[in-house]
Amino acid sequence: MPPGNPLPRTLYLRSKAMTDKSQQFASDNYSGICPEAWAAMEEANQGHQRAYGDDEWTHRAADDFRALFETDCEVFFAFNGTAANSLALSSLCQSYHSVICSETAHVETDECGAPEFFSNGSKLLVARTENGKLTPDSIREVALKRQDIHYPKPRVVTLTQATEVGSVYTPDEIRAISTTCKELGLNLHMDGARFSNACAFLGCSPADLTWKVGVDVLCFGGTKNGMAVGEAILFFNHDLAVDFDYRCKQAGQLASKMRFLSAPWVGLLQNDAWLKHARHANHCAQLLAQLVSDIPGVELMFPVQANGVFLQLSEPAIAALTARGWRFYTFIGKGGARFMCSWDTEEARVRELAADIREVMSA
Amino acid sequence: MPPGNPLPRTLYLRSKAMTDKSQQFASDNYSGICPEAWAAMEEANQGHQRAYGDDEWTHRAADDFRALFETDCEVFFAFNGTAANSLALSSLCQSYHSVICSETAHVETDECGAPEFFSNGSKLLVARTENGKLTPDSIREVALKRQDIHYPKPRVVTLTQATEVGSVYTPDEIRAISTTCKELGLNLHMDGARFSNACAFLGCSPADLTWKVGVDVLCFGGTKNGMAVGEAILFFNHDLAVDFDYRCKQAGQLASKMRFLSAPWVGLLQNDAWLKHARHANHCAQLLAQLVSDIPGVELMFPVQANGVFLQLSEPAIAALTARGWRFYTFIGKGGARFMCSWDTEEARVRELAADIREVMSA
Amino acid sequence: MPPGNPLPRTLYLRSKAMTDKSQQFASDNYSGICPEAWAAMEEANQGHQRAYGDDEWTHRAADDFRALFETDCEVFFAFNGTAANSLALSSLCQSYHSVICSETAHVETDECGAPEFFSNGSKLLVARTENGKLTPDSIREVALKRQDIHYPKPRVVTLTQATEVGSVYTPDEIRAISTTCKELGLNLHMDGARFSNACAFLGCSPADLTWKVGVDVLCFGGTKNGMAVGEAILFFNHDLAVDFDYRCKQAGQLASKMRFLSAPWVGLLQNDAWLKHARHANHCAQLLAQLVSDIPGVELMFPVQANGVFLQLSEPAIAALTARGWRFYTFIGKGGARFMCSWDTEEARVRELAADIREVMSA
Amino acid sequence: MPPGNPLPRTLYLRSKAMTDKSQQFASDNYSGICPEAWAAMEEANQGHQRAYGDDEWTHRAADDFRALFETDCEVFFAFNGTAANSLALSSLCQSYHSVICSETAHVETDECGAPEFFSNGSKLLVARTENGKLTPDSIREVALKRQDIHYPKPRVVTLTQATEVGSVYTPDEIRAISTTCKELGLNLHMDGARFSNACAFLGCSPADLTWKVGVDVLCFGGTKNGMAVGEAILFFNHDLAVDFDYRCKQAGQLASKMRFLSAPWVGLLQNDAWLKHARHANHCAQLLAQLVSDIPGVELMFPVQANGVFLQLSEPAIAALTARGWRFYTFIGKGGARFMCSWDTEEARVRELAADIREVMSA
Repeated sequence: MPPGNPLPRTLYLRSKAMTDKSQQFASDNYSGICPEAWAAMEEANQGHQRAYGDDEWTHRAADDFRALFETDCEVFFAFNGTAANSLALSSLCQSYHSVICSETAHVETDECGAPEFFSNGSKLLVARTENGKLTPDSIREVALKRQDIHYPKPRVVTLTQATEVGSVYTPDEIRAISTTCKELGLNLHMDGARFSNACAFLGCSPADLTWKVGVDVLCFGGTKNGMAVGEAILFFNHDLAVDFDYRCKQAGQLASKMRFLSAPWVGLLQNDAWLKHARHANHCAQLLAQLVSDIPGVELMFPVQANGVFLQLSEPAIAALTARGWRFYTFIGKGGARFMCSWDTEEARVRELAADIREVMSA
Repeated sequence: MPPGNPLPRTLYLRSKAMTDKSQQFASDNYSGICPEAWAAMEEANQGHQRAYGDDEWTHRAADDFRALFETDCEVFFAFNGTAANSLALSSLCQSYHSVICSETAHVETDECGAPEFFSNGSKLLVARTENGKLTPDSIREVALKRQDIHYPKPRVVTLTQATEVGSVYTPDEIRAISTTCKELGLNLHMDGARFSNACAFLGCSPADLTWKVGVDVLCFGGTKNGMAVGEAILFFNHDLAVDFDYRCKQAGQLASKMRFLSAPWVGLLQNDAWLKHARHANHCAQLLAQLVSDIPGVELMFPVQANGVFLQLSEPAIAALTARGWRFYTFIGKGGARFMCSWDTEEARVRELAADIREVMSA
Repeated sequence: MPPGNPLPRTLYLRSKAMTDKSQQFASDNYSGICPEAWAAMEEANQGHQRAYGDDEWTHRAADDFRALFETDCEVFFAFNGTAANSLALSSLCQSYHSVICSETAHVETDECGAPEFFSNGSKLLVARTENGKLTPDSIREVALKRQDIHYPKPRVVTLTQATEVGSVYTPDEIRAISTTCKELGLNLHMDGARFSNACAFLGCSPADLTWKVGVDVLCFGGTKNGMAVGEAILFFNHDLAVDFDYRCKQAGQLASKMRFLSAPWVGLLQNDAWLKHARHANHCAQLLAQLVSDIPGVELMFPVQANGVFLQLSEPAIAALTARGWRFYTFIGKGGARFMCSWDTEEARVRELAADIREVMSA
Repeated sequence: MPPGNPLPRTLYLRSKAMTDKSQQFASDNYSGICPEAWAAMEEANQGHQRAYGDDEWTHRAADDFRALFETDCEVFFAFNGTAANSLALSSLCQSYHSVICSETAHVETDECGAPEFFSNGSKLLVARTENGKLTPDSIREVALKRQDIHYPKPRVVTLTQATEVGSVYTPDEIRAISTTCKELGLNLHMDGARFSNACAFLGCSPADLTWKVGVDVLCFGGTKNGMAVGEAILFFNHDLAVDFDYRCKQAGQLASKMRFLSAPWVGLLQNDAWLKHARHANHCAQLLAQLVSDIPGVELMFPVQANGVFLQLSEPAIAALTARGWRFYTFIGKGGARFMCSWDTEEARVRELAADIREVMSA
């Protein structure tokens, strides 16, 4: 192995399988496929269908999105969130432009430079946040800092809804941001990996959180809410979607058997299954937060508004929890211990975890 | 809609669903998920699993590939063939290099410039073929044509096995090509979208058709042989695989719920299901070729060695077949009518199609 | 040195200097800096000036171009023709688009994949030519061949004026092409490495050959007409020039001491020095063509309309000329022997060359 | 003009010419061509020469560099520093790698995303500095922060010598950094836009500051030391230079009339003119620093080791200086007022400036 590559072969196979207990709170993408998505895939797996999205399921999923969002938006599908975000962002700017994001934004911290790659070099500019959320002021600060040709020109703002630290933008907050964007000539993108959880928390309609308050493009995440693969990209601004189908194809994001990406969406959108799952995950997070709220030394790092709970715990407590078999990340967002709930989290597990936290913190 | 974009909205939803009849021979990616892949996905959909490939299924699929290929190769997974090929090629050259391919190569004709995009500009150089196959001479011709810095430097040869016109490279042919490649300083990539069909036709082991005859990297296609999404990328030359996991991640090709890409492979590789399906598809193609062989005016454009049959038919016959509900492409490869068989093609349909061809040609 | 890189170190220093005789007809970029450009550089080299184009010389050069072209165009400067063409093309399309060009176009044959690199993957599509010139029909043929998302979407046509084989588009020919472009949603770019020679041949004004007949962007070459470095990029369509200054800067094409790129233009545009030089080079080419016109066995491959003469000569004659010390290219354009004249070509040399051709052909 | 582009047309022509006084200290690239470079260009402008670097002057310049650096390095030429740095960096890493630099590094703050563009997306990671200089610890901190595939893998460190704030790395400091680089698998690049000034300050040979202490690649700046255009790229590690000539060509950085980039280097390297000019600029900076050292309220922000002086001045003083016609930047590096000296700065002007600073600060 050449110098500079100390990593083991086939990197992503690093360790043994985890016990169920540990996996319940590590990440919402540790969960499997939800029943509604599975059933739709099963139904879609009948006979032959045209490839590349020219099939009934894809047609129907796109229409279902338009109905859900109460608007005639453009609908595309990509395999994962990294690609969906990067493709959307690259359609909103050129390589010599920059994208304003929060310091904890997934595009900045966890996509291995994908936005820069897909856009052929657009720079991400990190702005201050409050509770993980950008503000008109923090955007303005970054957008106006440099206005000469020696620095990439700001052209896009990307919000994550819900944020990576579990907070949620209200419609008013989004509208204030989109107003600032319009004033400064910036397009507005929303990374909605956990958009469902934001809708569930706020009790708002998808339209209320997007085009009605000035969002140009939304990447609506399915994976973290019960799908196998596949995110939807919704353009509310039609001009920005011109030739986007070519962009997806060239970037290796057009599935030949598209029905297996779109059918699960049909299942998930039907009878608001997407909302039910998000509500459940949110509920589990609220429950955990509530159960640990009176434990001395435990502090909530961020308001619990989606499906994640960020706790400040003592080092020994973290070690003790790990020893008991619990797994969770301690480096996501701004540190602390992150406990993620998902569509299939069991309340019993939540209570068990809370009890263990109480014990290890009082040790 | 701005000028220059006359295409309809959400392009890939262009038409109504087709009848089963028409779809049987249009493309092998019109078929669904085979039982073995489905069963493995179902089994994999139990409880939580680590994300991003650090799960038991991915581990097992990688090991199964190493066993099948009888070598300690590096194994990666991508969502589709376009991405698999483009990522592999971009790891074999730099932007100022060129890739030698056949004029009917999928990378040249049907990936919307993906190889150029992923490599940031590598040029594809088209070489002459015999029965759709590159030869040492045709490669040498292109590789030696220009050797100055004003033209991209040849660095890679890509073969498609089986080819886009249904022919198959023998081990000796591949070895002769790889010998030429080594002499000229070229890496050798194999696009194996229908690699299974080639193995089935030749009765050769996967090793016999790849590393034993000098192939550096193989993209092993699953989609056309019964999977929903997902291709495997196998590096036999370990040096070329350095940091390839980062490349996949940055390019939006690392699945979070990786088990749903890898488990189907476990199902497909078990008990040689992959080979069984390929044999069936090949058999159907042979049957069709045989049934039409004595029809006056019908000519086989290429030897039938995999799962595709390319027929020269009269224009009225093509129109008549279409009128009867059959669907097939007439612009793939070098024209003619292409009939593709897949893992689920029914013999009865093959006979029905052959009978119709006989009728329309005698009309 | 690793395998695959058989080239010698510091590649571009391959051989000893050539005699003056040989160099006179090898290429118009073998010539030096013309007196007018030199004088302007000398004058510009006084004291300090603002950097990055914010200086008096750049201001003046841009205004001189606007006066010469009789329109308020956007003017930018790049270091060389490869960059100028690539930057202009990348501003006219996206990576998933394609650029239609002739098979002898410099962008296709001699820029080492620069257009693909700057555009992050746009494919060049080669169209048929007549006397090295594209036609509405040949453009239409390529533009309409593929209209599905599996192939890059045509978005730009690039003409070279004068062409690489020494022919020249008339205003009517350009207008016919631009009409076709508009109909098909294509932008029109002109590679004007030898634009001066075309103007000189046709006796047309720069405006007559560009915006008045539908050209969107012109790369006006200075190097081949007496400058050291530096090409001008003129946008007649202002919308296409938005943020082009950022594009130049990011791509390493913004000179800090810009005055040394712009001042030579001031010198060259003053008193129509650019036209005088082009006329002289054209005249030398005409003279050569005339002097060899009656030599048996010598054939003009293309009409001589600019500063290049392409002759079909016998192999022994080519060898004999080379033995006598003449240097010329035999692989440019469509083969044959290319003799290029430049601003400083001496008539005496032309006659000497013609006499030698006569001798070696009669041998 | 479309929304989002509030900038005026032909951006770089923003203002009227400045008086000589103001320009003397604004930037070292406001200066012209030095006599030695000019004389060499004049001499090179005789007759025809082969193009693209295959000429005597380029040959000679490359050899002169090898002699100066006392080693058989690979030598290339690019048009400007942005391109030289970006091309060098892109040859040291892939798009999914990252480059560690200081927060004031020119590649980070003033190249409009060029490193990201040329590398197709490599991320720049900013490390802490002391007096504008990276340290082994600050590099280690950033390099080891993230080691998972969700974040670009560190692969290169870039130093600026002299730094953007006028400080200089000693040989020992560079050696300590290169030792850390080797340990961590990182290549070491040096941005030597003001390398001459560093050599002049330390009294070290070029070899002592580069390959002898572990630098892999140096971009040696000519523009700021008396050239019109053109930087040299020197690879001490030959493996990293493979096919770099193709990279330059594809990226639009191969001059056809290369002699006009290389001849000035011949002039500058002869009789150590490069060093004489750097010493003069450094001397002027030292003089300015000394003359203002006792002025109450004036503080040196960084040690004066090259040709720049960074002063903390009161706001009214800055305004008063500007009113008197002096021009200088206040936003370069870490703020304060930057006064740059160059090869042609006059001592009398330095004294005049110092006297004015004294007056306005005492006002």
